[in-house]
Amino acid sequence: MGAAEHGEYPPELSKEEEKYLLNTLKDWSIAHGLAVRPAPTFVQQSQDPTGVLASTAPVTLFPSLFPRSCFEEGLAIQKAYNELYSAIARDETWLQSIVEELLDIDDFVAKLWQIHLAVKKEGYVQNLSLGIFRSDYMVHKDPSRPDSTPGLKQVEFNTIASSFGGLSSQVSALHKYLLTVDAYSASMSSPIKADNLRQSKSAKSLAKGLAVAHNAYGTSRTARPLCVLFVVQDPERNVFDQRHLEYALLEENGVRSFRLPFGETLSHTKLDSDRTLVYTPPNSPSTPFEVTTIYFRAGYSPDDYPKEEDWTARLHLEKSRAIKCPSILTHLAGCKKVQQVLATPHSPHLQRFLPEFEVAARVLATFAPIYPLDNSEAGREARKLAADPASASRYVLKPQREGGGNNIYRKAIPPFLEKLPKTHWPAYILMEMIEPPQLKNAILRNGELQRGGVICELGVYGVSLWRDGGGAEQKGEILESFEAGYLLRTKGDQSEEGGVAAGFGAVDSCCLVDG
Amino acid sequence: MGAAEHGEYPPELSKEEEKYLLNTLKDWSIAHGLAVRPAPTFVQQSQDPTGVLASTAPVTLFPSLFPRSCFEEGLAIQKAYNELYSAIARDETWLQSIVEELLDIDDFVAKLWQIHLAVKKEGYVQNLSLGIFRSDYMVHKDPSRPDSTPGLKQVEFNTIASSFGGLSSQVSALHKYLLTVDAYSASMSSPIKADNLRQSKSAKSLAKGLAVAHNAYGTSRTARPLCVLFVVQDPERNVFDQRHLEYALLEENGVRSFRLPFGETLSHTKLDSDRTLVYTPPNSPSTPFEVTTIYFRAGYSPDDYPKEEDWTARLHLEKSRAIKCPSILTHLAGCKKVQQVLATPHSPHLQRFLPEFEVAARVLATFAPIYPLDNSEAGREARKLAADPASASRYVLKPQREGGGNNIYRKAIPPFLEKLPKTHWPAYILMEMIEPPQLKNAILRNGELQRGGVICELGVYGVSLWRDGGGAEQKGEILESFEAGYLLRTKGDQSEEGGVAAGFGAVDSCCLVDG
Repeated sequence: MGAAEHGEYPPELSKEEEKYLLNTLKDWSIAHGLAVRPAPTFVQQSQDPTGVLASTAPVTLFPSLFPRSCFEEGLAIQKAYNELYSAIARDETWLQSIVEELLDIDDFVAKLWQIHLAVKKEGYVQNLSLGIFRSDYMVHKDPSRPDSTPGLKQVEFNTIASSFGGLSSQVSALHKYLLTVDAYSASMSSPIKADNLRQSKSAKSLAKGLAVAHNAYGTSRTARPLCVLFVVQDPERNVFDQRHLEYALLEENGVRSFRLPFGETLSHTKLDSDRTLVYTPPNSPSTPFEVTTIYFRAGYSPDDYPKEEDWTARLHLEKSRAIKCPSILTHLAGCKKVQQVLATPHSPHLQRFLPEFEVAARVLATFAPIYPLDNSEAGREARKLAADPASASRYVLKPQREGGGNNIYRKAIPPFLEKLPKTHWPAYILMEMIEPPQLKNAILRNGELQRGGVICELGVYGVSLWRDGGGAEQKGEILESFEAGYLLRTKGDQSEEGGVAAGFGAVDSCCLVDG
Repeated sequence: MGAAEHGEYPPELSKEEEKYLLNTLKDWSIAHGLAVRPAPTFVQQSQDPTGVLASTAPVTLFPSLFPRSCFEEGLAIQKAYNELYSAIARDETWLQSIVEELLDIDDFVAKLWQIHLAVKKEGYVQNLSLGIFRSDYMVHKDPSRPDSTPGLKQVEFNTIASSFGGLSSQVSALHKYLLTVDAYSASMSSPIKADNLRQSKSAKSLAKGLAVAHNAYGTSRTARPLCVLFVVQDPERNVFDQRHLEYALLEENGVRSFRLPFGETLSHTKLDSDRTLVYTPPNSPSTPFEVTTIYFRAGYSPDDYPKEEDWTARLHLEKSRAIKCPSILTHLAGCKKVQQVLATPHSPHLQRFLPEFEVAARVLATFAPIYPLDNSEAGREARKLAADPASASRYVLKPQREGGGNNIYRKAIPPFLEKLPKTHWPAYILMEMIEPPQLKNAILRNGELQRGGVICELGVYGVSLWRDGGGAEQKGEILESFEAGYLLRTKGDQSEEGGVAAGFGAVDSCCLVDG
């Protein structure tokens, strides 16, 4: 799948075609809230102190080509992923074994774990947990076997604050509208056909997920009105993405919600003696609400905790009787380390959580192999692969610690390791490179149009509500689990051959193609 | 109805209440396309050359209080107004008698009339006309009778390019949303209750009107695809207002439409030998469309005709077989002069067009009396009223010519007339002042919040499709006629007592109150 197989994609547009496409896109996007607050580099706060300006969200002009089989597989296995990660979150013993390896090297993980321990000591008072997940993939095609079928490889699995579910529904509707009004080349051979476009149902589905938790919470013990609490960053440029979920939650499920900046948590919420979480809207202090569900769209990054008080706030929320989306343990289940441990070849862990062989095999097929460079059997194998320039060219060497910019790619790995004392090797992991297909698209971002090579990441949303078993082992039960739509996020490729600036992402939708 | 009767309206908000209201409003408006392109004084073109920025449309924070009986009467008589103005548009003889008085003093009217004569000479080839009307009113309460019931008085009747039908639906939905999420004071005595708010159905109804014409046009004679053509100004800041109609036309009626800047008419349209209007989209020159309906959102002002070629374009469109919204005669029926002639006390004209006495009486009740200052019987009566300071205080003196800034108000009239030679008096008309109730509101406009005294104008939309009789007298038949939603437009009052800058309008919705 690529330019060669589908002629020129995206189609070359005449000046008039591009003008029509852009005008149609710019108006539709604002008319339908496919928008963001402008970046400070685009509009300074002093120009618009009230904040009434908005901009078309970064979007692709065309839906990107995506292999149909990969798309369908990604959606089909989401329920298995829901099962996997909710099982991990329920398995405190196992999670502890993972987290313990990180305590010394990752302050953030250590703090989260301490919160779990503190709440555990007092006793958890809510045994329901809501997961709104997003499993992110790239298409991988083995470059050594050009005729092989492309497959999905997981980039990461998000268990907290999975974003763009609101805008994703809008961008797939946008691309469909552009097709309907003939904004795409009308050539018969163009793959952009209604049958090949996929509407993402993410906004409605994620809202439904929140409503499921809200309803499972039960009635108020204090006859207070009930609400869902969106815990958010402030300011938030991506606010419309979140608002679309709020609107769907109210309009389609009749559920009230409020937005609470994470940093103001302790000012506006309190715990009753039975740890019911009470939110008092600052605009309406005489009408406190009982919070059924805390939906974190903040708190996932150390940057969200500038003050010690912010950790107190997280503990305060975690202690409460509200259903958390996610709970601390679910948040921790999203550690890169968990992904790595599951993805190490011959890892026994996947089977622990997904006992059905067929299900586990399908999930396993989406892992890019990740090896430790330690003295284990897998580690010894990895050391050989990394030291040999021939095999190293299919890998990337990453430090265990989070954060980009320190990766060593392909043929640079053997000379790098040669200079590194062997005792330091275990600080790194070796991951098989995902080799995405060569694609092109055009991105409108901050009013600038950029064309060139792009890389697409498919995110599949999943919703799961489960009851913890209460013991140390994974137990409990899943009460609700469904696949909840998709996101295609597209950014300039790293090659710097194309015109799209590397790393600048845009929301996109899928134009499915065979092969 | 006023502040005194409804306590403080709008309710005083605490700082926190106002913050919540504004945040909720700003996000909702962008998420739902209640937006405009920013004014050049707000965002310069050089900052955003691609034009991706948008701003919350000027809106009121609260729905303005509006007398229920006036609102209901305005909607109820819209079908009578449809009948009246379509009858005027079908009565060339009568219109000619009006227009002839304007030919020497109004170039614009003269040019429009010449186009009618030119097309008439060749013969009209389309006998269907579509009217999308908006009748604008203010609430009037006789200041000399404080206990009297408020009534509607017509400000003007629009027969071309009636705007804000797209945004009006959105602003009434906004105010309803703000009520739902408790953004308004929750006091029991507040009139802002769901039962008192009125959702405007204007976007859907106007789109339906265009679809009615489109379908009445019939099939293409040339097997070309059919479309509606929006003839627009370029650039257009109020583009989302129009786009909402386009989207409703496509989504709810399955009708394609295109936007054609009026100045580019001759470049992209041509007439077949049978005067079928063919539009060739510049982005898709190989797929010409047959135009069923021309919807003018431009061409209503002399400013739209900077070049002689623009008049050629208007003639070209008027000659075509497409249904015009409006036709030239319908456009001319919207002259202020027509309103004046109908509104002169004891005028025989209303009866000519609305033979049913009861219908005519209801329409008549919405006219603010307008007198000529000539030697007719009505004129002699008016001269007395104008010369006496006691009676003059209820009137405004306006020159016949269009254009504001030359009006003489109330007690200034007698001394003004005293200095004016009596031969020049007929150049003026005397109109009874509309005395709107004292209202307050807050307007968000270009990011600035302004509070104070406001004046509200209710616009009621009407759609009518009719067939011309083909003769000189009014004949033909009305094929479709319906009331099509409403607009409330609110601006700062002229008193300069309030903080809202006079003349700066905002879209608003009605909160109905009794009395």
